[in-house]
Parts: sequence; C-alpha cells; structure tokens
Amino acid sequence: MSHTSPVKYKLIKKDGSQRPRLGQIYTQRGIINTPAFIPVGTNATVKAMSQDELKELGAEVILSNTYHLYLRPGHGVIKELGGLHKFMNWHGPILTDSGGFQVFSLSPLRKINDNGVTFKSHLDGSTHLITPEIAMEIQAALGSDIAMAFDECTPYPASREYTLNSLELTTKWAKRCKEYHDTETRRHGDTEMKRYNDSCNSPFHRFSLPPSQALFGIVQGGTYNDLRKQSAGELIEMDFDGYALGGLSVGEPKELMYEIINYTTPLLPQDKPRYLMGIGDLADVLEAVSAGIDMFDCVMPTRNARNGTLFTSEGRISIKREEFKTDPRPLDPNCECYTCSNYSRAYLRHLFANKEILSMRLNTIHNLYFYLNFFRRMRNAIKQGVFESFRKGLWSSACSQII
Amino acid sequence: MSHTSPVKYKLIKKDGSQRPRLGQIYTQRGIINTPAFIPVGTNATVKAMSQDELKELGAEVILSNTYHLYLRPGHGVIKELGGLHKFMNWHGPILTDSGGFQVFSLSPLRKINDNGVTFKSHLDGSTHLITPEIAMEIQAALGSDIAMAFDECTPYPASREYTLNSLELTTKWAKRCKEYHDTETRRHGDTEMKRYNDSCNSPFHRFSLPPSQALFGIVQGGTYNDLRKQSAGELIEMDFDGYALGGLSVGEPKELMYEIINYTTPLLPQDKPRYLMGIGDLADVLEAVSAGIDMFDCVMPTRNARNGTLFTSEGRISIKREEFKTDPRPLDPNCECYTCSNYSRAYLRHLFANKEILSMRLNTIHNLYFYLNFFRRMRNAIKQGVFESFRKGLWSSACSQII
Repeated sequence: MSHTSPVKYKLIKKDGSQRPRLGQIYTQRGIINTPAFIPVGTNATVKAMSQDELKELGAEVILSNTYHLYLRPGHGVIKELGGLHKFMNWHGPILTDSGGFQVFSLSPLRKINDNGVTFKSHLDGSTHLITPEIAMEIQAALGSDIAMAFDECTPYPASREYTLNSLELTTKWAKRCKEYHDTETRRHGDTEMKRYNDSCNSPFHRFSLPPSQALFGIVQGGTYNDLRKQSAGELIEMDFDGYALGGLSVGEPKELMYEIINYTTPLLPQDKPRYLMGIGDLADVLEAVSAGIDMFDCVMPTRNARNGTLFTSEGRISIKREEFKTDPRPLDPNCECYTCSNYSRAYLRHLFANKEILSMRLNTIHNLYFYLNFFRRMRNAIKQGVFESFRKGLWSSACSQII
Repeated sequence: MSHTSPVKYKLIKKDGSQRPRLGQIYTQRGIINTPAFIPVGTNATVKAMSQDELKELGAEVILSNTYHLYLRPGHGVIKELGGLHKFMNWHGPILTDSGGFQVFSLSPLRKINDNGVTFKSHLDGSTHLITPEIAMEIQAALGSDIAMAFDECTPYPASREYTLNSLELTTKWAKRCKEYHDTETRRHGDTEMKRYNDSCNSPFHRFSLPPSQALFGIVQGGTYNDLRKQSAGELIEMDFDGYALGGLSVGEPKELMYEIINYTTPLLPQDKPRYLMGIGDLADVLEAVSAGIDMFDCVMPTRNARNGTLFTSEGRISIKREEFKTDPRPLDPNCECYTCSNYSRAYLRHLFANKEILSMRLNTIHNLYFYLNFFRRMRNAIKQGVFESFRKGLWSSACSQII
C-alpha cells in the first residue's frame, strides 16, 4: 500500500559516478539539507544548549529519545501540552527514535517476546511494556516529524541463527508499526488537526499547517550481508518514508561495519532518505556518506564537549591540559564559532577545572559548530564534485588525530 | 591624604526628606546606576550565564571573588592574560572582594595575627598567607575597577571585647591596604598602562583608557552601634573611594541587622558610594535602601535558581512541585524575561527534574531578570518620589511570600 509521504527526499547532486549524494528532505517544519547531522536532545533538550542557540548554529533537525520522554515526563503530559515542538519550543523538524535501542542499552532488566519488550525503568525500577503499537502511540503523542519503527537492535557478536530470528522479529514489528501508523495515527489525524489548531492561539505558534508524521523502517541483520539484504528487502516492500541502518557500531570491528554499510546502503531506494543511526565519528561519517548515507545522529560532539574533549581543525584536544593554563589563543584559530570568537583556551581550561556550567555551554557550542560546519563543508564538497579530496584532506585527518 | 578617585558618585535624587537615594557611580568601564544589584561571578563567571547574557539582562557591574581566583587559576595567570576583564571577556565594571570573608567562611583551618591570615585551601589543603598587602597585590593583578580592603569579618555572636579588637585590626589592615594601594598599586600604574596598551591589539579590546582601581573600606563593629561609629570614623579619616558595611547577615536577628544598618549608613560620607556586602534578600534590600545604601551583592538569585526556587511577582515558587507537571503557563505571567517569553512551567519542571543544564540557565536568567528589574523599578520609584509606596506594594510582599 503506497501513500503520500509527509517527507520528500530530493536528490540534488551525485558526486559524479560516486555514491555520495547531496539532497534535501522536505518536511512541514523545514528543509533538512543532507548529508545532515542531527544533534541529540535526549530529554527534550540538547544538553547545555538553548533552542535559539541550536538554530543559530545551523541545526536543521534534532533527535529526541522516546524511551526517556515516555518515562519522564510521560508522552501523555507532552501531548496534553501540545506536543514536543511546543513543549520544548523548537519549531524545526524533530526525529524520535523508537525507544528500542534505549530499552536494550539502559534498562537493567528486559524480557523480549513476540508481543514486545517488558523492561524496568533505569530511573525507578518500575516495570513497563513497549510493543510496536505502543512505540507508535508514544511517538504520535510526541508529534515528531519523523518516527522510527520499533526494532530489536541485534547485539554483537551474534550467531547467524540469533541474527536471523532477531531480524524476522524486527520485520514483524515493522509491519505492525506500519499498520498502526497507517490506520490509528492517521485516523486520529483529524482530532490532532483540531487539537493543533486549538493550540494556535499560543504566542509560541509559528506554523499554519497541521503536522503529520513520517515513519522510517530500520534495517537489521547484524554483520551478515545476506541477512541485511533480506531485512532491507522486507522493509522496502512495506514502503516506509525512509530507511535506517540499525545495529551498527555496537562493538564490531570498523572494517566489518564499513563492509555492512557499503553493502547495504545501495540496496535502499534512491528516492528516500537513508539514515545511519547513532554514528557520529567523523571518519565513519565520511565512509558512510561515500556509501550514500544522508542522515546521522550522535552524542559525540555534545558528550565530548562536557568531558572537555574538543574538536579542532588540527585535531582533538583535551582542554584540561596544564599547557593551556596561560594560553591566550582561541581554541581553534580557524574556527569562527561564538566560543572561539570570544574566549581563550586559558579561560576555557579555567571554567572546565571549576566544573562551571559556562564550560559545558561554550564547549558544546564549539563542538556542535565544528560538526555542523564539517557537514556544511562536506555538502559543499559533494556539490563541487570534490568529495574524495575533501575526504582525504586536512579536515578528515583532523577528525581522527588527537593532539 | 586626599586623591582623585577613580570612581565618582553622583547623587541624582533623594526621595524627599527620606534617605533612599538615586545615584550613579562613574567608572572608566561604565556607569553603575544605584541602588545597584551586583551579580556574583565567583570563579570569573556568573554561574550558568554568558557574559553577553549578563549584559542583555542589564547587569552594570559584577563581583568576582579574590579568594577563589587567587587559588585557581592564580592572580598571576590572570595578570599575564591581561587582567580579569580580558580573561573573562566582561568589559563592564568589576568589583572584587578582599578574600577576607571567604578565608573565614571556606577555609578549613586559619590562623590570624596582626600580620594577616594563614589558611588552608578548601581545594587541596595547601597553606597560604594573605596579608593586607597581598590582598591588594592580588586585586591589582586582577585589575578590578573596585577593590575592597582586607578585613576581619567579625562573627556573631561576639563579645564587645572581641569585636573591639577585631575592628581595630580591621582599621590597621585598612591603613596598610590604603598605603599599599596609594603607593605600590599606583606606582605600577605606568607599567600597567604599558601592559594594557600592549594588549590593545586584541580583538576583544574595547576601551581606550588604561584602567585604574578604586579602593573601598569596610566598616566592622559587629552589633555594637558605638563600635560601628568608631570603625566608620577611622575609615572615613583615611579617605576611601567608597565604604562598605561588612559583618552583617552573619547570624544576627534581622531587627538587630536593620538597627545597625540604619544607625551606621548615615554616618558615611554623602559623596561616596555605600555598599552593603553579601546581602540580597529583597526585604533587607528595601530596608537598606531606605537607610541610604547604594550597592548590594548576593548569590541569592543565582543559587536559588540552580536549586529550583524562583522569584515571581506573586511570590517565590519551587519549580519541582508536582502541580507544574502539566502547567502550560509561563513561570511569571507578569515577567518579560527570555525564560517567561519562551517556556512553560511544565518544561521548566521537566528540565529541573532531569538536572538539565538548560534548567539552571533558564532559571538563572529569570531570577537575575527579576532582581535587576526589581532594582530598576526601585530606582524609578525613588525618582518619582514614591519609594515608600513601592516598598509597601505588591513587589515587596512578593519578595517574602512563598507560594
């Protein structure tokens, strides 16, 4: 059953005969230029940032975590308050994950069966059940622009048998997600539209169209190419609005991860966005973009910032180092971010040593600027047909180097 | 020995026959409208704020702590980096305390004699000595616009004998501070001017005049009116650039504190700024302003903000309360701050419950706005000759009420 997708992927340019592609994803809340980096706002906030700062940094889409918001404050609360965009006052596109990955990585106890996953909250130990339908219901309540199907993230290492069973479960769940989304989520569209229009007397309101939600499927299959192919094939048949690669960067060697990405990505439809979940190491990003990936999310720039590890054009530096104590230079002399335009390494080191909140703010601004700027430059390189030299150039070596 | 003061107090208006006074303090880095609230930036940062935000909020002067900066990163480091203004990129006036109060309140071990105070750092237990001369040297290195004389903060309760000895020590130390400041600090003026001009090729540079530093004396005398009079008299004779009341709000009953403030303030020169140290409860501020005080500093708005206690026009509220979970209203419907213009109580409660950095930021913005706005309105009330009705009005009751 085909439908009109709430998001549209427009291919702008392929880099010659290569796979890297420049595109745009049209959503009702704005355009996402791809390849895109998606900052992670777990608890309906990208840690240390205001929503205005994210906008100024050039973030075009953010991710928020279904698992966290389900537990606290609860999706019912957010729905009652007019949805996630209004709740957090971010009016650009939002992508929500399905909660599956967090259930597997954060919950101290979980039981999985065909119906769904029973797990204990990492906050208070209370017991919860998430099924594919519930994952859809939560994401509908949050009102994200892009929802993700509920999947099992296959661990590494996993036997071929485990991986096959796991991907078949993911396929079954994907079907149930799609069905629920096609019927329930859309059937409630009218109610939602009324709710939305009722809420439009708010001073925060900025959009005239009622939101509708896209649904992406997640390809599993572990480290087995043929199982990845099977998973992709089954999902493509269901006609999702976009496709993600899941279950990567979970402990497997980089070469294996690259092999899977390079094998699987070209199997995905050309006219839909392709999203590599949870990966943000820039060397991995370059590999994945060259395989044809469009979207990435990762806590790496924000988490590293709070830990004092900062990305610069000359490599990663740890701001806590003694040598910066009297260093009057900006963090990165080649950077034009707010932090580098206004503060010295010495001040940043001092703030970090004192665990000051401004340390986390200034570091996060810088790292997010670095990431978003990296993606801007990468898009420009694809546009100019020089992705390969970009990939081999100064910037990519800067990404892995630790100085 | 009289001298030309680096700060000038201009009396703009007295409220009729009453003592509240409207004024301006002219400094080389800007005008401070009085009565003024001074946000506290202990570690060369007002916690959770950027310097641009402070400016936008209307802060005209900030305080930074000599004790903290002496220990970390060290005044030598800050001097080498061009002084505190350049170090933290705040180009308005800065007041530094003498370090005395923190030595008494934070150090786990201290030994006091005529020469100065030996104490152990609360950070690493290392032993340090601060004398009046060293306190001046540190503040000269920081390059603050207003330095404070090194004093002993008399505790409460204290016998008359202890208080008298303590104030005589404070007087002796004040004399040594003044002498050092008049000779050493000013003798090094030429060197400093050269340093300063050398640093002017920095893109952060915004002033054309080399800075010079004012020095305020601190009146002690505990809870004994006659000893306060003695202390004030001895300091006034030394001709400081301004005068502070110290050793208040250290445990004594409010009535006693008010009595001392009301008795002592009028003893201070009319043509110099008067500063009540460490006090920021707004009911106390109203009492002190009516006694003729011009300057206040306090961590109350910023510390309370981080603990989730927020000042509103209807009283103080604790944002963690369950009832706010689904409350779509702004924190204070009568407030025009960034937080109240953009976020709901429900979102603020959610951020606080998750210990998010944005919680501390938005709460601090609101509380500082509330304080600075309170002072703006108070100044306006003095200007209009209606301070008494302001004092008795909605705003003052809002300050003490807890809802």
